[in-house]
Parts: sequence; C-alpha cells; structure tokens
Amino acid sequence: MQQYELAVLPGDGIGNEVMPEALRVLDVVGAKYGVRFAYQHFDWSCETYKSTGAMMPADGLDRLRDHDSILLGAVGWPGVPDHISLWGLLLPIRREFDQYVNLRPVRLLPGVTPPVRDKQPGDIDFWVVRENTEGEYSQLGGRQGEGTPTEMVLQTAAFTRHGTDRIMRYAFELARRLGKPHVTSATKSNGIYHSMPYWDERFAAIASEYPDVTVDQDHIDILCARFVMSPERFDVVVASNLFGDILSDLGPGVTGTIGVAPSGNINPERTYPSTFEPVHGSAPDIAGRGIANPIGQIWSAAMMLDHLGLPEAGADVVSAIERVLVDETAPRTPDLGGGATTQDLGKAIAEAV
Amino acid sequence: MQQYELAVLPGDGIGNEVMPEALRVLDVVGAKYGVRFAYQHFDWSCETYKSTGAMMPADGLDRLRDHDSILLGAVGWPGVPDHISLWGLLLPIRREFDQYVNLRPVRLLPGVTPPVRDKQPGDIDFWVVRENTEGEYSQLGGRQGEGTPTEMVLQTAAFTRHGTDRIMRYAFELARRLGKPHVTSATKSNGIYHSMPYWDERFAAIASEYPDVTVDQDHIDILCARFVMSPERFDVVVASNLFGDILSDLGPGVTGTIGVAPSGNINPERTYPSTFEPVHGSAPDIAGRGIANPIGQIWSAAMMLDHLGLPEAGADVVSAIERVLVDETAPRTPDLGGGATTQDLGKAIAEAV
Ligand SMILES: CC(C)[C@H](C(=O)O)[C@@H](O)C(=O)O
Ligand SMILES: CC(C)[C@H](C(=O)O)[C@@H](O)C(=O)O
Repeated sequence: MQQYELAVLPGDGIGNEVMPEALRVLDVVGAKYGVRFAYQHFDWSCETYKSTGAMMPADGLDRLRDHDSILLGAVGWPGVPDHISLWGLLLPIRREFDQYVNLRPVRLLPGVTPPVRDKQPGDIDFWVVRENTEGEYSQLGGRQGEGTPTEMVLQTAAFTRHGTDRIMRYAFELARRLGKPHVTSATKSNGIYHSMPYWDERFAAIASEYPDVTVDQDHIDILCARFVMSPERFDVVVASNLFGDILSDLGPGVTGTIGVAPSGNINPERTYPSTFEPVHGSAPDIAGRGIANPIGQIWSAAMMLDHLGLPEAGADVVSAIERVLVDETAPRTPDLGGGATTQDLGKAIAEAV
Repeated sequence: MQQYELAVLPGDGIGNEVMPEALRVLDVVGAKYGVRFAYQHFDWSCETYKSTGAMMPADGLDRLRDHDSILLGAVGWPGVPDHISLWGLLLPIRREFDQYVNLRPVRLLPGVTPPVRDKQPGDIDFWVVRENTEGEYSQLGGRQGEGTPTEMVLQTAAFTRHGTDRIMRYAFELARRLGKPHVTSATKSNGIYHSMPYWDERFAAIASEYPDVTVDQDHIDILCARFVMSPERFDVVVASNLFGDILSDLGPGVTGTIGVAPSGNINPERTYPSTFEPVHGSAPDIAGRGIANPIGQIWSAAMMLDHLGLPEAGADVVSAIERVLVDETAPRTPDLGGGATTQDLGKAIAEAV
C-alpha cells in the first residue's frame, strides 16, 4: 500500500482545532483509495517562540524536508509580532522549499450566500496564481535616523527573471490544463516604476510562448474593483507576491468563502515538499471553543491530494464539502449560521466521503 | 467679487468631454454664491508627448504654480506607456506641489444599484485617506543583467517619518472634523518586513495624540475582503500610496460608483495648488462619442469647492448630483443604463444646482 509521509503543523489557535478534522477526512479518503497517510506532528507555534525565542528549532527545515507534503494550520498569536511569527516559520518554509506557487481557488460554492448579488455557483470559478518566494515580501531594506525627525525606512522588492518567468509559465500551463486558456496579469506599471513595467515585459514574453492562451492585464486597483463588479470574467489570474495575497483574500471575500478557502504553497518540481494551509488565520477571538469551521483545512488537504497525484481523491473531498454545504440537515458551525462544533462538521464531511 | 484662478487640464480621451460639464456646473454654482472662476486651459496630454517627446513643457509646473486649484480630467492613452504619461504629468504634479493627501469618498449613492447586496445609502459612507507623495510609488531602483537569465529588478519604497506622520495626522483630524472619530489603518506588517512594521509604529504613535479617536488596523488582504463583506464598519481609512490606490478603486467598485467617483490631491497647507480629478481614466473605448458620464468630474469640482473654502457650494453640487441620480425622468448616460449624452447629464446637474 502506497504510504505518504505528511508533516503536520497545526500552529496556533484554531489551527489546532481544524487540523484533526482534515486528518479524519484524509484517513477516510485514504481507505477508500487504498493509500495510507502517516502523520508526523510538529507543535511549532507562537508558544514555541515564547518559550525558546524561535518559532522552530534551528534544524526545523531539515526535519520537514523529507516529507511528501506539509499540512499547516495557522500561524500567529497576539503578543508575538506578526513579522516575527511569520518570518520565523511560514515564510522560510515557502522560500527554502522553493514553493514558488501560491495557488488559491476563488469559487462560489453551492449553499453559500455571497455578499455580491445576482451570482450563481458556476459564475465565479477561477484560480489565483501568486508568486510566493520573492517580490514585495522582502527583508531587503532598513531604517535610518531612528527616533529623529528625518527617520526613513526603505523597503526593496526584488523581481528576478527566474522568479517572474516561472510563475507566469505555471499560470499559462494551469490555464491550458483547466481547458480555460485565458490568463489575466495583475500589474501596476503606471505607478510602480521599475518592477511592474518589468513584470509586464515578462508577461508579454511568456505569453508569446502560449499563442493559444488569451491574455489581458489590469492594474491592481481596477482589478480589485473588477473582482467585485465582474468576477465571472476571470479564469486564471497571475500576480506578484503582494498582489496575489490581496487578490486571494478579496476573491473569497466576494464569494463569501473567506472562512473556508484553501491554499497550496507548491513546489511544482517536487524537489521539496509543498505546504497546504487554509487562508484563514489562527482566529484568537474564537480559538479554544471548538467552533471553528474546518472546511478550509479539509479543502487544503484536498488540494494536497491533487498535488500528490490523487486528483480523484481530491475531487471526492471537494464534492463531499459541497454536498454537506447544500444539505440543510447537515451540521453548520456558527460562521455558517448554525450551532455545530468543528468536530460535527468534520465528521459530516468524512461521512460524505 | 471673489475670483478663483483655476488651471484646467482635460488631458486625454474622455477627459476632454467631461471637463466642460464640470466648468458648466462651476459657473452656475459660482453665480449662485457670488464668486467667479477664471479658467486657464492647458492641453497637455499624450498628444503633447507624441509631438514634443514630453507630457508637458519644461516650465510646466511653474505655469501651474500660482493657480488656486487644478482641475484635471484623465491622463493616459494607448501607445504611450503608462509609466511615461503618468510620471511625466500626473505624478510630478502630486509630488512637486506636495499634494500629500489623496482623498476619496466611498459612498453608496441613492439611485445607484451596487454589486453588493442588502446595503442602503447611508450604510456605506467613508473616506479613504491615501498618502500621495512617497511610499511604493517610487523611481528608486533599477535593473541588472538586462536580457540575461540572471536579470533582476529592484524596486524600493521609501517611508519617511515626515511623510508617514503627516498623512496619519490628516486622517485623525478628518475623523474628528466629520464627527466620526474612528480611523482604520491599512497595513501588511506580517509580510512586508521593514516598511509596514514602521507604518504600524507611527500609527500607534500618532494615535496616542488623539485619545478621543478609536483605531483599528487590518492587513491589506483582509481589509480588501472587508470592504466587500462589511463596508459599513469604516469611517476613515488611512493607507500608503499603493494600498490607498487599491482601496480607493475597490471602495467605489463595491458601491457601484467607480465611473463617477471623485478625488482630491490635496496640499492641506495651501502652499501649492491642489488637484481635483475623477477616479476614472481616459476610457479609450468610449472616447470621442460624447457619452461619458461627467459626474466624476463634477463631483471632483465639488471637492475643490470644499477645499477653496466654499463648503456650502460643494454640498450643493453633491446634492444636485444625488437629486439627478434619483430622478427617474433625468437623463442618464449609457453606463447608468440610459441613452443620454455627456452634455445632457451635465446640463441636468447644472440646472439642479
Ligand atoms: C494613473 C495612476 C498612476 C493613478 C495612481 O495609481 O495613483 C490612478 O490609479 C489614481 O489612483 O489616481
Ligand atoms: C500571514 C501572511 C504573511 C500571509 C501572507 O501574506 O502571505 C497570509 O496572508 C497568506 O496569504 O498566506
């Protein structure tokens, strides 16, 4: 029996509550498809930082390296500055393991009422392909004149040919694979003088390798507005690290699925493990009460199944989520308007599988 | 009779069509309030660039300097790269004249159906205060290894104490003036390592000067989602140049007013003229047909009236716009679902004043 070695990092807050539900579903779907998932648990979190001064041990990345995939819950907790918790755990994993694709679906789900009017499931169904290793998320820069009136902070974004081309190629390949040969580039070349004109230049160059794929590009300001006004026009949207971050929260905001959206941090070459994590955070406001919605974590596990070469199993999990969402007798967590627990909803999805 | 000297730059495309309607309304409101507006016209545009190689003459800024305000239409045209047209005209004006506040209302108007459901006029009514002279819009940076596989582009954002503190103070003062003592800061200090933690630091420092004003802060990704999911929670949102650009298009996207939204590029000290311009662009797709909606330009003129110390006149123009929008017998341009011309709608608003 094929066995997959998974590194499981629940992280902080509700990460610890939703993760067991994803593993529950994986066990069920594994049994159904005749594969096994072995879990190695890592408790690295803001707790680790408070007790050791680091978010993970010095050899942390090495301990993850040989796993087939990483399942992550949520990182971040009040009292630990975000840039410490994230640059100490989440972002090094993305970068060291060259998970250069951050892939997120934007999909209007049956049974979910979105904030926008007049849209049906099927109308909104696209992917945001976000560059995940360079760009605006950067430690290049610093401060001068601290505490003086002439204090100044510089922050440098780096766009390499290597990094830019490969994310764009991934987007074009994905569009072909989906049979939706249409890619939209997120830019801001009218305002951001060096990096974004370069982004456009590479987009044009890579697009010329894919003559069968139609392209368009929008500045990020109007693109965000169009996510709200005409989300049905998108199929695959390729964006820099920051713009992709924005778009992949805004998209689920528009579809009413921000609490349940999944993401993959993918190393397409499979040289390193990829990480799958929900878009939501650690939710200190509801953590510890067992009422968090586990769908984002379960859907992330479904994306992992795709990546591991088990697309039917992945589709099965997504379909189970959709069936539970439309079934009015199924349990609903408070964010979905019900009174069910995290476990109730996790069990219902596991049963639907 | 008090006379105001206005520099009028229609710019490109529909800028030339909507500007006369704003002047028409200004003439009427001027007569009503006993003031006069004198217009000096400047035809600087992408045409100028094509014939002279520059968007404006070398002494262009000097020729604008002594005006009381600048009314701008739209800048940009196919065939002239955006970063040329904008860094050659729009952005130098913002910077040289220290128009460090970009102020934009996000308001659900009566008579406009927004893409979001279940919202009434009054539910969404807030201001985006955008830093307008520094930050991510920067010419700092460059390219190395052009044309090679190791090609790389660096783009540096600069955040000064001076620039950061003054935009935040403006936001807090505005919140007080509006009687809505609540400011939200747009940040991304979890991903952007140097500049955004600094932004947060200064926000906390300035907030402590305004103990009567409540504050919150959201990372730009979730903030964008919240603009769609819960726009009623905002009163004044303060943001960096890029984040403010995004939010001030997204906001009008949510309220269905992107075609009619106004903006002010304001030098609060009045050392230099301020610029008022619609949020929309030059719209090459409809330019030349006389069907562009002039409300953004007219509403921008209303913001100018406020700035010139004529708030009653400004409120009068906004009220005229609102009355025309709810009046089902009034002319409507195609974007509003009618068949009227730019002039028809401009005249109707002038009459309503
Ligand atoms: C045209 C462009 C440079 C400009 C900006 O991004 O500032 C526009 O989008 C705006 O918001 O006024
Ligand atoms: C937590 C934060 C650094 C992260 C990001 O911006 O990448 C998150 O928002 C995400 O999108 O995964």
